[in-house]
Amino acid sequence: MIPCFFHPRQLKFKPNYEWAFGEKIDHPETTARAEGILAALEADAQRFDVRRPTQISEEALLAVHDPRLLQMLRTAEGLRKTDTFYPAVFMRGTDITPDPGQISHAGSFCFDSGTPLNRETWPAARWSASCAVSAAVAVAGGEAKVAYALSRPPGHHATTGLFGGYCYLANSSLAAQSLRTGGAERVAILDIDVHHGNGSQEVFWADPAVLTVSLHGDPTNFFPFFTGFAEEIGGGAGRGTNLNVPLPEGTDGQAYAQALEGALARIADFDPAFLVVAAGVDTYERDPMGNFALTTADLGRVGERIGALGLPTVAVQEGGYYTPHIGRNVEALLLGLAEGMSRRG
Amino acid sequence: MIPCFFHPRQLKFKPNYEWAFGEKIDHPETTARAEGILAALEADAQRFDVRRPTQISEEALLAVHDPRLLQMLRTAEGLRKTDTFYPAVFMRGTDITPDPGQISHAGSFCFDSGTPLNRETWPAARWSASCAVSAAVAVAGGEAKVAYALSRPPGHHATTGLFGGYCYLANSSLAAQSLRTGGAERVAILDIDVHHGNGSQEVFWADPAVLTVSLHGDPTNFFPFFTGFAEEIGGGAGRGTNLNVPLPEGTDGQAYAQALEGALARIADFDPAFLVVAAGVDTYERDPMGNFALTTADLGRVGERIGALGLPTVAVQEGGYYTPHIGRNVEALLLGLAEGMSRRG
Repeated sequence: MIPCFFHPRQLKFKPNYEWAFGEKIDHPETTARAEGILAALEADAQRFDVRRPTQISEEALLAVHDPRLLQMLRTAEGLRKTDTFYPAVFMRGTDITPDPGQISHAGSFCFDSGTPLNRETWPAARWSASCAVSAAVAVAGGEAKVAYALSRPPGHHATTGLFGGYCYLANSSLAAQSLRTGGAERVAILDIDVHHGNGSQEVFWADPAVLTVSLHGDPTNFFPFFTGFAEEIGGGAGRGTNLNVPLPEGTDGQAYAQALEGALARIADFDPAFLVVAAGVDTYERDPMGNFALTTADLGRVGERIGALGLPTVAVQEGGYYTPHIGRNVEALLLGLAEGMSRRG
Repeated sequence: MIPCFFHPRQLKFKPNYEWAFGEKIDHPETTARAEGILAALEADAQRFDVRRPTQISEEALLAVHDPRLLQMLRTAEGLRKTDTFYPAVFMRGTDITPDPGQISHAGSFCFDSGTPLNRETWPAARWSASCAVSAAVAVAGGEAKVAYALSRPPGHHATTGLFGGYCYLANSSLAAQSLRTGGAERVAILDIDVHHGNGSQEVFWADPAVLTVSLHGDPTNFFPFFTGFAEEIGGGAGRGTNLNVPLPEGTDGQAYAQALEGALARIADFDPAFLVVAAGVDTYERDPMGNFALTTADLGRVGERIGALGLPTVAVQEGGYYTPHIGRNVEALLLGLAEGMSRRG
């Protein structure tokens, strides 16, 4: 049985639109994503035990995030039911002191025009982060070797102080940090979302106790554009504990598997007490936001290879936007993880 | 005769759309703005002498701007004729090194989602800045006591390193800096655009030789939101040489005139050798982007009062979006300036 965490309040947040380089588009980060995953998990009650998370503590949030980001997200709770704030002005400069108590200043706590705020954003983001930490607690407590957080909205693009890329709180980082706080000497994050995990990279940039590894589409002409290149290896005391593996458009299961082996060797080398998998499934061949060509079976094999590390593992949902198949893709990944681990064990 | 500067290449740049807090709207910064002003000036050849500017030098640009901003704008010249880049990702962080040679990184040199780039942006912005500097040269050389730059796109929201707010280069600041470089000990900028001149404020924030004064709509819920408050008075050596006068929505000619007197007294006190007027006319009662209630006659009186300072004055066009009346509004302002100055003189 894989403990799985989800809170219904996460479904109350429905972003409407995104400004995507000149077009107003329907927002891809829909509730149908979580609903599709939930349906697949609930259909297999022998293997997945879906429960509600415990609400994340303020301490756990502050162990990763700038309090001003949290205040800004809370400010959005004061919006009227029908109002959505779409950040459009992202001011910065030495003469600026953004006020997280003013919704009009949200752009200073945000890095893109695709991540709107309304009164349901904060509750959904907080429960999404709560799933990640509750899954970490389940694994840290020894209840299971694999736990899953149905985190939605996703988290791996959010940095310590900025929301963006459909992400508000750094769910995977919060899970990793909570494991560290709980006593683990070293933790690794493996990000298999098709987009670079710029948030996790930034959060742990100078932290030698958390290895951040990300496999993703070459960011030269792909979101998040600014990070995800191989030369980014961490800084300060964390120099050498960040690994980016950019892969070309069209990467298929075979090429992916090969790149994954290098990443896994690096993780094994680091010898972490726990592994957090930032588990986006937008590497899927039909994903509208991705540019890779993995099949559902490939995702299962990715899970197996990760599971074969034998590390207690927290899988935190990140991206994945082809909703008709998102449930089966997540299921394949999780069952692969469990299978890989049991073979090893 | 008021020397007026304009280059036809400024009309080749046509931004199409803007993302304005949840809506894709037709871009308000149209060529019709410049065409309306040009028609008014050319219709009165007794008073306005319209000519082409000399192209601004690289040195003059670098005296105000970060070379990386200039490189980014030049990079956009490489876009295909039909392509427009709408910044949507505005990444920043200690682990980021934006590349001004890559169009996908433009958001790191930009602060909003309303200021697009295409291959005509740089030539238009450069000629727009050239107008400002050529007008400054005309006044500095003693040819006229008032000169006018038909600068479009506008400039007063652009900072040393960021474009935004429909502005790419800081035209008014470039004029002021060129006067300083030419030997003036002190220069003042008076910004009468309805929006705070955040760019000029930032450029001269720590410079005691340039007084920046701005009258504008209270930015609490009005662009540019982050700056324009009375407590911003400059920093470092420039502490005390920035004056913001935020005024309430609906400010009419009478209330404006009163606020203007305080600003003019401050400028007279500073005793500058030259005055640069960041001459937006979006204080006009019908302006779709403004929230003040000045009439055309009010704008004439504003010009007169400024002219009565008796300072050699460079008027640089900034905003103004009610195109049917923009010509007459600019004309009223300029004739007021000349009239105020001649009465004094």
